[in-house]
Amino acid sequence: MSRPDVLEKLVSLCKRRGFIFQSSEIYGGTGSVWDYGPLGVELKKNVKDAWWHTMVRSRDDVEGLDAAILMHPRVWEASGHVSGFNDPLIDCKACKARFRADQMDGASCPRKPSKKPGEQGDCQLTEPRQFNLMFKTFMGPVEDTAAVVYLRPETAQGIFVNFLNVQQARRQKVPFGIAQIGKAFRNEITPGNFTFRTREFEQMEMQFFVDPAAAEGKRTDMEWFEYWKAQRMEWHLALGLERERLEFHQHSATELAHYAKAAFDIQFDFGGTLGFQEIEGVHHRSDFDLGRHQEFSSKRMEYVDQVANRRYIPYVVETSVGADRVTLALLCNAYAEESVEGESEGRVVLHLKPSLAPIKAGIFPLTKKDGQPEMANRIVEDLRPLYPVDYDDAGSIGKRYRRQDEVGTPFCVTIDPESTGNGTVTVRDRDTLAQDRIDATQLRAYLAAKLAG
Amino acid sequence: MSRPDVLEKLVSLCKRRGFIFQSSEIYGGTGSVWDYGPLGVELKKNVKDAWWHTMVRSRDDVEGLDAAILMHPRVWEASGHVSGFNDPLIDCKACKARFRADQMDGASCPRKPSKKPGEQGDCQLTEPRQFNLMFKTFMGPVEDTAAVVYLRPETAQGIFVNFLNVQQARRQKVPFGIAQIGKAFRNEITPGNFTFRTREFEQMEMQFFVDPAAAEGKRTDMEWFEYWKAQRMEWHLALGLERERLEFHQHSATELAHYAKAAFDIQFDFGGTLGFQEIEGVHHRSDFDLGRHQEFSSKRMEYVDQVANRRYIPYVVETSVGADRVTLALLCNAYAEESVEGESEGRVVLHLKPSLAPIKAGIFPLTKKDGQPEMANRIVEDLRPLYPVDYDDAGSIGKRYRRQDEVGTPFCVTIDPESTGNGTVTVRDRDTLAQDRIDATQLRAYLAAKLAG
Repeated sequence: MSRPDVLEKLVSLCKRRGFIFQSSEIYGGTGSVWDYGPLGVELKKNVKDAWWHTMVRSRDDVEGLDAAILMHPRVWEASGHVSGFNDPLIDCKACKARFRADQMDGASCPRKPSKKPGEQGDCQLTEPRQFNLMFKTFMGPVEDTAAVVYLRPETAQGIFVNFLNVQQARRQKVPFGIAQIGKAFRNEITPGNFTFRTREFEQMEMQFFVDPAAAEGKRTDMEWFEYWKAQRMEWHLALGLERERLEFHQHSATELAHYAKAAFDIQFDFGGTLGFQEIEGVHHRSDFDLGRHQEFSSKRMEYVDQVANRRYIPYVVETSVGADRVTLALLCNAYAEESVEGESEGRVVLHLKPSLAPIKAGIFPLTKKDGQPEMANRIVEDLRPLYPVDYDDAGSIGKRYRRQDEVGTPFCVTIDPESTGNGTVTVRDRDTLAQDRIDATQLRAYLAAKLAG
Repeated sequence: MSRPDVLEKLVSLCKRRGFIFQSSEIYGGTGSVWDYGPLGVELKKNVKDAWWHTMVRSRDDVEGLDAAILMHPRVWEASGHVSGFNDPLIDCKACKARFRADQMDGASCPRKPSKKPGEQGDCQLTEPRQFNLMFKTFMGPVEDTAAVVYLRPETAQGIFVNFLNVQQARRQKVPFGIAQIGKAFRNEITPGNFTFRTREFEQMEMQFFVDPAAAEGKRTDMEWFEYWKAQRMEWHLALGLERERLEFHQHSATELAHYAKAAFDIQFDFGGTLGFQEIEGVHHRSDFDLGRHQEFSSKRMEYVDQVANRRYIPYVVETSVGADRVTLALLCNAYAEESVEGESEGRVVLHLKPSLAPIKAGIFPLTKKDGQPEMANRIVEDLRPLYPVDYDDAGSIGKRYRRQDEVGTPFCVTIDPESTGNGTVTVRDRDTLAQDRIDATQLRAYLAAKLAG
């Protein structure tokens, strides 16, 4: 039984409430590129900061990096992207549509959507030809081939070429890792499904360098691989993704890259026809990348183990997660339509983990008089230095609750006649709908406890 | 009297200690593109987070945004970049060098560096021709003109095209602003000075939308302009840049864009021959950008003031700061070579504001025995969830101090024989060199107080 498809509803909610807008919408949009609005940028920043904290700041064996998008073109020859990062492309000479040869089964003719391409001779399909997915541009004033550079299709290579720079500057010893968050670009032939597959996206990647011949009593490369598989699954669970919507998908022999020793994807069930799809990859890349860079750059990429008096090219265990995909997974996971007891109208609610929610609290004066707005504003001024809060005095309290529910705000604080009398406020919980009456001076501590973890 | 030139020393320190590496260094580098190493990424992240907190999270009248790098090509026709974002370029047919026509005075012939281009007929210079600074790429499978897109040369246009999306989704009322942090790209003919002028860089921009005919008792557009000038200067001072190294530079009539009502740069004195250079611009852009997008998209870009029953295109006050430039300014500002009383060797130190420093504390066991490493590790485990700390047990204490001074670590905690006896540690201050002996259980609170603000 498949979960309901909420993607279309999310596209609409995200635009209306300021999570995600179509890029350059006033010009008809840019193909499969999206802009994060005021709430989306906060949600995604919370996801990225959570990853950075878990993967870099809370560990002594992973170093951070922020390598540039534009790299030397030889990098992509060494990595194999110039020769091998292709999709097979089929054109239709009749209707000018383009298809991926390996996805013809699900395709339909754009001129006659009831028909498959090629059916009954409507389409005139070319033979498949290889189309490189890297965006190409030109550095320097003249468009000659010497100056061709690419927008990186993955952030990983920025880590590999800096392996020894980071290791030496930070005096790290293998095993250790390098992590970075950054944009990557792929000229996808058939992008789609909202922010799931886009031409511009953000990766959070970590490459962990291990000894291919780990000594007795040390973790082997395959043990590190299992370690990181488990760690990464735990991270998604800690963000609040439901356990039953997550699963490992092991790459079969035909899916596995020729240099890879093992590869698992972490898949999330997006619901509807999309179903289970990759949000992260955990890959054992062997010594392929560092070895190729040593070959192509003629620079040694070996690690020198001074204690054991050995030099070697480490194996790499990679964890690669899409920041946009995790953000979309969190929205799908959080979205619910619920009936509310005692009320005729239901509500749409995002059950986001409080620490990830873009707005932490809505602050409502019950009425616009009797000192309630003043007290509400004092509370706003007290909380805003700590995290984003929304002041709202428009419409009924019920309507204001719905507005905050729909964007995942975990707490709503109401200032009523009792508040201005005895200094207490009510705090309503988004998920349980329970209301606590507490002293306004305790609000900081109350919310801090609820938002922790 | 000009300040000493520390740029060359910083390039070396930044590579050696892991702040900034040349991009794709093993392949000979990519022209004027740089990678941030483990310490650089933390420093720059602290700068960006400080900006985001000041400009977005701590205000109710500025909304965040994260627009994509790839935008619809019409955006750059409307903005004027396709027709006007050019540098005049001169080629030399003899030695193939390229020069900016407006910078020939300072240029020298690359084949004969003692001579100026054109001198004594060595060079065969072409007439100046216009060279567009935007990086061009192709979206979709075929390189035809319909699919030409540009890497954005500024983040501002992502804000303008989303003006009404943000205003409506967040129910904002003019005056309000939209802020974003993101990469931009310019195919500079003569980049240089380390990370000061690069082809890939990160901007932190805010566009503040104001009523061109503000009612009695409200701030006028020029008053908002003065407000933001003052706010932005305060921000740089709050980061620790020295007041006497900062100044406003007013754009003269010839520097001013034709649509601009006023423009000031905030300049910082980088020292040496570079001297005072722009790190931020505060610009009154009038209604030019929104007006052009209305014209080119045929979509209304007006704000509807429902109270006053008016509709109008707002004026825009822009604040635009380079994240890389501020980071470089902070490094220049912090760098010092000092003699240390009672020691023959001097020290290199980065006097970074503690809240910006990449590492907050070095933790040193005096010796590798007697329970000191264990106690040091317990302290590391206690502090690491809060902020980055470095454990170091290699070499003399003096050598370890120097290592942390050089990367700006504000505090060094030493565990000595007394520590394992009575539970106290010494905390040494990077700037004053004063040492406090405190109880290890008080360390969290002690450092929190010192790191605040």
